[in-house]
Amino acid sequence: MPKIVLSRSEYEKRVQKIREELARRQLDALYLTSDTSILYASGFSHISTERPAALLVPLEGDVVFMGPVMERDHIRACAPQVKRVYSYLDYPGEKHPMDLFAGWLREIGLASKAIGIDSIAGASGKWGYSGPDISEKLPEARFVKARDIVENLRLVKSDEEVVLIKESARWAALAHSLLQEFTKPGLWDLEISLKASLEASREMKRKLGPGYEKTKWGLACASANYRGQVGENSAVPHAISTRRKIRKGDVLVTGAGSDVGGYSAELERTMIVGKPTDKQKKYFEIMVEMQGAALQAFGPDVMCSDVDKATINVARERGVTEYLLHHAGHGLGLEGHEPPWLDLGNDELLKPGMVVSCEPGIYIPGYAGFRHSDTVLITKQGAQLVTSYPRDLRSLTIRAR
Amino acid sequence: MPKIVLSRSEYEKRVQKIREELARRQLDALYLTSDTSILYASGFSHISTERPAALLVPLEGDVVFMGPVMERDHIRACAPQVKRVYSYLDYPGEKHPMDLFAGWLREIGLASKAIGIDSIAGASGKWGYSGPDISEKLPEARFVKARDIVENLRLVKSDEEVVLIKESARWAALAHSLLQEFTKPGLWDLEISLKASLEASREMKRKLGPGYEKTKWGLACASANYRGQVGENSAVPHAISTRRKIRKGDVLVTGAGSDVGGYSAELERTMIVGKPTDKQKKYFEIMVEMQGAALQAFGPDVMCSDVDKATINVARERGVTEYLLHHAGHGLGLEGHEPPWLDLGNDELLKPGMVVSCEPGIYIPGYAGFRHSDTVLITKQGAQLVTSYPRDLRSLTIRAR
Repeated sequence: MPKIVLSRSEYEKRVQKIREELARRQLDALYLTSDTSILYASGFSHISTERPAALLVPLEGDVVFMGPVMERDHIRACAPQVKRVYSYLDYPGEKHPMDLFAGWLREIGLASKAIGIDSIAGASGKWGYSGPDISEKLPEARFVKARDIVENLRLVKSDEEVVLIKESARWAALAHSLLQEFTKPGLWDLEISLKASLEASREMKRKLGPGYEKTKWGLACASANYRGQVGENSAVPHAISTRRKIRKGDVLVTGAGSDVGGYSAELERTMIVGKPTDKQKKYFEIMVEMQGAALQAFGPDVMCSDVDKATINVARERGVTEYLLHHAGHGLGLEGHEPPWLDLGNDELLKPGMVVSCEPGIYIPGYAGFRHSDTVLITKQGAQLVTSYPRDLRSLTIRAR
Repeated sequence: MPKIVLSRSEYEKRVQKIREELARRQLDALYLTSDTSILYASGFSHISTERPAALLVPLEGDVVFMGPVMERDHIRACAPQVKRVYSYLDYPGEKHPMDLFAGWLREIGLASKAIGIDSIAGASGKWGYSGPDISEKLPEARFVKARDIVENLRLVKSDEEVVLIKESARWAALAHSLLQEFTKPGLWDLEISLKASLEASREMKRKLGPGYEKTKWGLACASANYRGQVGENSAVPHAISTRRKIRKGDVLVTGAGSDVGGYSAELERTMIVGKPTDKQKKYFEIMVEMQGAALQAFGPDVMCSDVDKATINVARERGVTEYLLHHAGHGLGLEGHEPPWLDLGNDELLKPGMVVSCEPGIYIPGYAGFRHSDTVLITKQGAQLVTSYPRDLRSLTIRAR
């Protein structure tokens, strides 16, 4: 069976690393409100809402969760190593959760300590939440911005994380191949996407067996979709939807992924419905050339900006710089985008274990957009493609009469 | 044809109301970074990422958008009334977007003005974003927390908003009826959910015609799902997934909605697979009684806390208070949860035009959870059910041999 969950010791190591960083910064605890950071540090995935929730990693002693009572049994089941759970009935409550949180921090002995925090409010602050900052309720404590502690740990993936991302890539490819198979003129992008996601998710559940479950909130465990990037709308990189059906002659831009322990690889392709025109071929080939240049540029100790430059150089040579609307790629893992940014303005060095998307694109307004995205692992020797799916025009042409 | 988009004048009214509130607070502009607030004020829906984006509503003059170049043509197409668009290539960029934003604010003449802002950072701060607060880059300006300006406007829905929410309720009901129809022992909750969402979305696209498109990012335009609330896991109100298939004897808790102009109604039901046991019947009936008490309590000038109390009183009489894990409901509209909160701690008064969920639930750990949710519109005369779907046990029993 493929590995689909992280080991218990992976979480122990993470907590240990957080504690080492706390010691280095002379902090007594880390207070996390981000759902992703809570998942990273504890393995507990939850729906972050207006109801404040926080995970507290003290320098010593038990990891603590504070949150709504509806998550009490949930976290106990998912993250038994979180030994102390404080809960309140609901938000806003007769006593505001920040008053309760302050009381619990006192009880834990953190009242006059230095606490690293990822959100000064003390709550993720979603969906209509309002309240005083936790620092107002605990004025003796010293709160220090420390969102970067977990974010920095996430930059270089562990071996276990890489295994999960590779497994995700397999299911993303299946979802994408179904998307391609189901695509034909006369259909809405949305119905093709849902059908491909249904079939891929079912197959994923079947093959991964009873040990598998989705970690994050969402309809599908494996999905592929167009997100409205159909025809002229493919020129909008972050389109959300389209009103019209797919037609012969359309350029399509796709996206596929799957949830393995909360991690997802990224796989995107440009496809053309019917025989490609010369103009379509030209832009398609430039885009593939740009992606090839980025793939060549990857390696340990390469500057992130140099990967971006490699693609911009191709665009310049081919006279399409005006059609660039974004950089060459971004880190990924537990979130859709994460550092490091493959961006002109980022001189950070790539390191073995970093996982990034490689997705230079060109977008001709009112005509079409062209973008492939692959997931790449930086290794000691160079770089490795994590996603495996054809990149050539012939393979990505949809037959249409 | 049903009304599926807001009129242009609706947005003009919103901007006008924002300006009235700015004048009242002696502010010169409102700076919005929340995707929902930007959508509310301009009609522009976008995927909020690490790339800073902001809508600026000045007391006088053009509404301004500042954001990544990939959204430039997108906002021009979706919200032509946003006349000025400033853009940068990508994040973090050779010059940090907050430096550029500060420069543009100077150009607009806001350098030394009082600016209401919904996020002190000046950016939504998602997905690994980091940067200085906008106030550091524009020290002459006075930034004032003003997230509540748009949130307060959203509290009472306009007639146009109510029409969209009612339309959404129709499609939520269709998706739910398909979910119910497709449910049988031996299937994964996830495959039933995806199939129901596919069929409902296709039908919605077909019936609403070419004028319809999804406003928000997501796989389906109409969806119904279990989110893992299957069998003993139905006792976890915010479960995310389940490993096992549906079995005869399971209690199931559902959720359905649909995107009409970004608005969604909320419809949730408890269903039982096979002949209900006496124990299941007992809890189901208590839950229905609790929901009935809340529905009776609604009306204009009723305190939100009184609706919650009405359900708690039933729970007390029936001896199930230990199984309460959340309050009676919440406002809804552009977001899944919004104020007002139907919570013990909220003495705010309900007003005609408010739209709330009505969803008291009981959750017996390790056994099952029971919750219906309906969407309710507060009217001048009392309250109106917006969602229409059977609530009785007989209608919600899934046949199973």
